[in-house]
Amino acid sequence: MLDLNLASVSYGGKTQKNIVVIGGGTGTYTVLSGLKKYPPDLLDITAIVTVADSGGSTGRLRDEFGYLPVGDFRMALVALADDSGAGQALRSLFLHRFDKGEGLRGHNFGNLFLVALTDIFGSEEKAIEYASQILRIRGKVLPISKQKLTLSAEYEDGTILHGETYIDEPPEGHNGKQRIRRLWVDSEAVISESAKEAIASADLIIVGPGDLYTSILANVVVHGAKEALMSSQAKLVYISNLMSKYGQTHGFGVEDHLNELSLYMGRVPEYVLVNNEPLPDDILKKYEEQQEFRVPDDLEDSDRQGIIRDNLLALPESKKNSGDVLKRSLIRHDPDKIASAVIALP
Amino acid sequence: MLDLNLASVSYGGKTQKNIVVIGGGTGTYTVLSGLKKYPPDLLDITAIVTVADSGGSTGRLRDEFGYLPVGDFRMALVALADDSGAGQALRSLFLHRFDKGEGLRGHNFGNLFLVALTDIFGSEEKAIEYASQILRIRGKVLPISKQKLTLSAEYEDGTILHGETYIDEPPEGHNGKQRIRRLWVDSEAVISESAKEAIASADLIIVGPGDLYTSILANVVVHGAKEALMSSQAKLVYISNLMSKYGQTHGFGVEDHLNELSLYMGRVPEYVLVNNEPLPDDILKKYEEQQEFRVPDDLEDSDRQGIIRDNLLALPESKKNSGDVLKRSLIRHDPDKIASAVIALP
Repeated sequence: MLDLNLASVSYGGKTQKNIVVIGGGTGTYTVLSGLKKYPPDLLDITAIVTVADSGGSTGRLRDEFGYLPVGDFRMALVALADDSGAGQALRSLFLHRFDKGEGLRGHNFGNLFLVALTDIFGSEEKAIEYASQILRIRGKVLPISKQKLTLSAEYEDGTILHGETYIDEPPEGHNGKQRIRRLWVDSEAVISESAKEAIASADLIIVGPGDLYTSILANVVVHGAKEALMSSQAKLVYISNLMSKYGQTHGFGVEDHLNELSLYMGRVPEYVLVNNEPLPDDILKKYEEQQEFRVPDDLEDSDRQGIIRDNLLALPESKKNSGDVLKRSLIRHDPDKIASAVIALP
Repeated sequence: MLDLNLASVSYGGKTQKNIVVIGGGTGTYTVLSGLKKYPPDLLDITAIVTVADSGGSTGRLRDEFGYLPVGDFRMALVALADDSGAGQALRSLFLHRFDKGEGLRGHNFGNLFLVALTDIFGSEEKAIEYASQILRIRGKVLPISKQKLTLSAEYEDGTILHGETYIDEPPEGHNGKQRIRRLWVDSEAVISESAKEAIASADLIIVGPGDLYTSILANVVVHGAKEALMSSQAKLVYISNLMSKYGQTHGFGVEDHLNELSLYMGRVPEYVLVNNEPLPDDILKKYEEQQEFRVPDDLEDSDRQGIIRDNLLALPESKKNSGDVLKRSLIRHDPDKIASAVIALP
């Protein structure tokens, strides 16, 4: 059991802190999983997730049904779901991927659940709301936008890729070592009212860990999101990625991440959480085969304040107990350590 | 709201009556929907359903996953599900059929739910148990057998058809006006222990309405089922079908149904519930186009006891409020009237 160390928590007399986590995918899953263990009277948790996903099971459903992509909703919902008693099986069900059945193979059951609910309620927001009830989630999950959108990226060599799935996994022939020069959504998709309100009333906004362009900035480039972030009084926290990603952040240090974030968000994060526990050499070797490398901590303490270095790494042992979502990353953050570091922020 | 008229109920001092409903499909759905409105301390409800279904969404999943067919489980679960508050949407979800998506189109979400649960728990019985919890069902749903089986029928002209779906909807060239001479399961599938126990401890066993061969007798021909029925002290009730079915009961009167039931079950029903409300002529005309006709009440009061004639018909108005399952039958029984007649049995 986690040491909550609640005595150290104080927010200028306020009893509850509004935390907004912006992202999608497994990084956001990790952050939410850790935060949800803290009592509701201490933390109000809102997850704002990207609607740019266009690959895999989610992409197929998005194309065939014409709804917002459901995969990132699903992950955030499961992260915040009640995992006591019967809730445990319901979480497994939401994460379950069919490995048989023509047309079913590769589909995630949680995705089908959300699509069926959208069929019934006629709205993605109502579907998420109802799934939230069934899963008895702690907090709220909101789409960054209610409109369908396509994420596009322009690279240093002038190449342009359209669609999140191609930016995430560059097509053959694409040089994934180059930088993304520009990221945008080529539609009039605007930030949802609910996301805007959550950002406005947040005390703390967390971005990362996660794919810098396809999970984090995919939210920020939605029209109105930058403005919402700039005008929010919330402190902004960036949790640094452990590994670089071929096609997105090849050769990036922590500072490169921060610079890109600051550019797109229009503000510099007040806090940066950086892991200082060494990564296991043997696992690093495996990542290198995928062209993924440790993100070096190149921040200078003299340049800025708010750098928090701590052991944020998940123990290799804990892999066994994790759901299939997290098995993909062998080097990853520990939900409890992250949450504890977030809670301890001054 | 239904008039429960509980004052008239008495079972020789026993406070709770064990009712077992044997069948599958929409007929069983109707009976269960009506019975579940009675208080649990009065009725203990168990549905025993066929595992012979081999068509549609259920058949595809059965073939592709190798599990017991889930469609009849689903229908019985939904019939007994809690329909208050959030339960209403969960029931809709279980009945929802995808009309889009390659490979998803035509699949029933409730079926996928049960298949995913079977994947997770590794057993159909555990999957049903868990779904029962989620749907907060009133009572229990049990498979007649835990083994896969194929239903076969031999007709008067010597033709043999294998597979429930072909018996249910005869292939082109098959003369659906002839009788089924023999119905059997061509495997060593035996009755499940749980179904056997439920039959043994029942006070009342209800069969019908429903497709005589593919929904009712499909249970009875499972090895051990006839013996279980014969040795049970329960009173046996047959609720007569309103319409004949091409391919199964063409030209049948109520007596033909009773004779076949008695032959396969090894015992004569103590009670027969027969609707005596005239069927609307205009709807009958539509059925005639499908070669389906009113089942004439040809029972002679002098020949036997236990014939209960009453208005058991659903009002046309109630169609509007029914789920998609029931829309297929325009002439159908009223759940409340059936339940009321069952409860009033001496």
